[in-house]
Amino acid sequence: MARIVMKFGGTSVKDIDRIRNVAQRVKAEVGAGNEVAVVVSAMAGVTNQLVDWTNQLSKLHDPREYDVVVASGEQVTSGLLAVGLQAIGVEARSWLGWQVPIRSNAVHGKARIESILAERIEAGFKRGEVAVVAGFQGVAEGERITTLGRGGSDTSAVALAAALKASRCDIYTDVDGVYTTDPRIVAKARKLDKITYEEMLELASLGAKVLQTRSVEMAMNHRVRLRVLSSFEDGPGTLVCDEDEIVEKSIVSGIAYSRDEAKITLTGVADRPGVAAAIFGPLAESSINVDMIVQNVSVDGTSTDITFTVGKADLDRAVHVITGRRDKLTFKDLKADKNVSKVSVIGVGMRSHAGVAQRMFSALADRSINIQAISTSEIKISVLIAEEYTELAVRALHTAYGLDGK
Amino acid sequence: MARIVMKFGGTSVKDIDRIRNVAQRVKAEVGAGNEVAVVVSAMAGVTNQLVDWTNQLSKLHDPREYDVVVASGEQVTSGLLAVGLQAIGVEARSWLGWQVPIRSNAVHGKARIESILAERIEAGFKRGEVAVVAGFQGVAEGERITTLGRGGSDTSAVALAAALKASRCDIYTDVDGVYTTDPRIVAKARKLDKITYEEMLELASLGAKVLQTRSVEMAMNHRVRLRVLSSFEDGPGTLVCDEDEIVEKSIVSGIAYSRDEAKITLTGVADRPGVAAAIFGPLAESSINVDMIVQNVSVDGTSTDITFTVGKADLDRAVHVITGRRDKLTFKDLKADKNVSKVSVIGVGMRSHAGVAQRMFSALADRSINIQAISTSEIKISVLIAEEYTELAVRALHTAYGLDGK
Repeated sequence: MARIVMKFGGTSVKDIDRIRNVAQRVKAEVGAGNEVAVVVSAMAGVTNQLVDWTNQLSKLHDPREYDVVVASGEQVTSGLLAVGLQAIGVEARSWLGWQVPIRSNAVHGKARIESILAERIEAGFKRGEVAVVAGFQGVAEGERITTLGRGGSDTSAVALAAALKASRCDIYTDVDGVYTTDPRIVAKARKLDKITYEEMLELASLGAKVLQTRSVEMAMNHRVRLRVLSSFEDGPGTLVCDEDEIVEKSIVSGIAYSRDEAKITLTGVADRPGVAAAIFGPLAESSINVDMIVQNVSVDGTSTDITFTVGKADLDRAVHVITGRRDKLTFKDLKADKNVSKVSVIGVGMRSHAGVAQRMFSALADRSINIQAISTSEIKISVLIAEEYTELAVRALHTAYGLDGK
Repeated sequence: MARIVMKFGGTSVKDIDRIRNVAQRVKAEVGAGNEVAVVVSAMAGVTNQLVDWTNQLSKLHDPREYDVVVASGEQVTSGLLAVGLQAIGVEARSWLGWQVPIRSNAVHGKARIESILAERIEAGFKRGEVAVVAGFQGVAEGERITTLGRGGSDTSAVALAAALKASRCDIYTDVDGVYTTDPRIVAKARKLDKITYEEMLELASLGAKVLQTRSVEMAMNHRVRLRVLSSFEDGPGTLVCDEDEIVEKSIVSGIAYSRDEAKITLTGVADRPGVAAAIFGPLAESSINVDMIVQNVSVDGTSTDITFTVGKADLDRAVHVITGRRDKLTFKDLKADKNVSKVSVIGVGMRSHAGVAQRMFSALADRSINIQAISTSEIKISVLIAEEYTELAVRALHTAYGLDGK
């Protein structure tokens, strides 16, 4: 007998037929002798509707009340799935965040889970009950409802799996696993059987929207074996696990891309110590994340150019912050460019292999794609390119690293 | 400074514009220096949708899970109204049943409120906050969510008014008060300025759908001054209060009708002691309410006819129960008739006036309307007639008792 957590996203529970389908999948796991906790999202579209209503009433709404409104979506699904399970002879009860309880901090709208009491749910297991837990929500001090931020149900599931010491956390979604890259761009993209936490983390944060980044971090920290699989087709999906579990490591596991970048170039910046701090300090204070930074070598010894990237959504604010400090920063010109994208190759194997970056640069050069900036980590190389080359670059790299399927 | 409870039904909060309108009404009461608790229903149509989903999954659903699902509707409205109030500068916070807490028994789907803790809401008043309370819901032992049955938000409001010792409980709805009869049938129906609890109770239970019966009972028991008024137009509405507060008592205050009746006639019933118990005992055991009962005088001393009414929704079950006992009950024939309706005249004044019933019978006889059964209470006379005469009878009685407006 194993203990498992199953998580179903919004498209998997978007109507009554799909909730019935989910109930059958849960029944199969119970029939196999497992203790099962299910985490559910709101029915697809419901959260957007609730957010829209709240915004209509006030753009600057009280996040505590926002949480009361939007947490209702998962409440509905948890009750409905419990009914759906009982209807096919599976003992079940719903659990809201405050009932478990799933304790979080009080950062309403994007709260972090602090602890989950496993006791009551485990008592339910002893009674032979499936626990249907409303995802995305918790409860903070003072008994106020909190929500974990968009996609937070993944985090609920992983946190619950950790608290229950589950042997597996299965994330059911509308794709059948994690791919070497976006199949909409590369027809030869392959589903991965296994991927390490570290790689998944890079893929998740780089725009592969299969799993919420925070949920992967948490799975890694608590060594929760995560599986991504389809709620519509049968199949083993992709296992996200420790490096040790993967026997055949490929150098590069996947190619990710993100169109969510914008580039700012400052020309004629005085080349003296403290300049970088003068630019990036104020951006950090305004909570603007800077990703890639390129500083050219000073030609004449007195001035240089600095290029960096921020999220597209932050671009206007970033420009505002920089120009607002014009008197303190010396620079000739500021150029902002939204037409860029970031393409990355990811793989734990690159730690022990040389020449990985070189292959990337050659593949792009062969297609005459200009690299505007580079950033690297131990298991990732990212380049900034003009947005219109995104698909071409992803396809070229997918082939160059031998990832193409048949 | 007064303390008041305001309650808004589903049509009053059915979209964002209407929620804004409600916020303005609340603001006006706050501006007048009052401490205000607002009780809200779900947005019109939402509860039906949630009930429908639950029924689709299982006709015989677990009422505890049904409660989890349907209670979400009021949760949404309470959060939205709190945001709407804050947006126009009124301090407010939402309160769910379990947060107040509003403790109820565990009869899920139609729970009864057992107690309301006023403390936390009163602390909010001290901070200058409007309390926006989700109606229709409570929490039972074991921290399970309960709901109070359809229309239960009226009861939430009255119970809260009693707990807070509010000086008034204003029920905002889509009509501007309580009428002498249904204005859709009688153009000359008049709005009443005041009505006693007892009369309102009869009107409510007889099909005037302005207030839930239980809420009127509770208001009477706790002497909560109830006001029924429109959320769309200004006006004093109708005050439901103690008899003492009404100086000019009319003999008859209103005419009610209900098409929700069905008649069963058993002919050739053995005329011996215990027969009535043998018939009505099994019906009571099956939770079928019997309203009017008429037993004819035995003609030959051995057999008689018995006629009684049940709710239309219970007719099939009632027939099933009776015919299932055919071996123990001796009767010749069972006739069921759905084409009946009950028309009632109501007034506390009839306690001290003779001839009230006579006037009713004459008015009906003048229109050749046959009376099939009669039942009376201290302040009410009801007759059962053929359904097609309903409107004619209501109009005739409205005129006969001098209720017609100009």
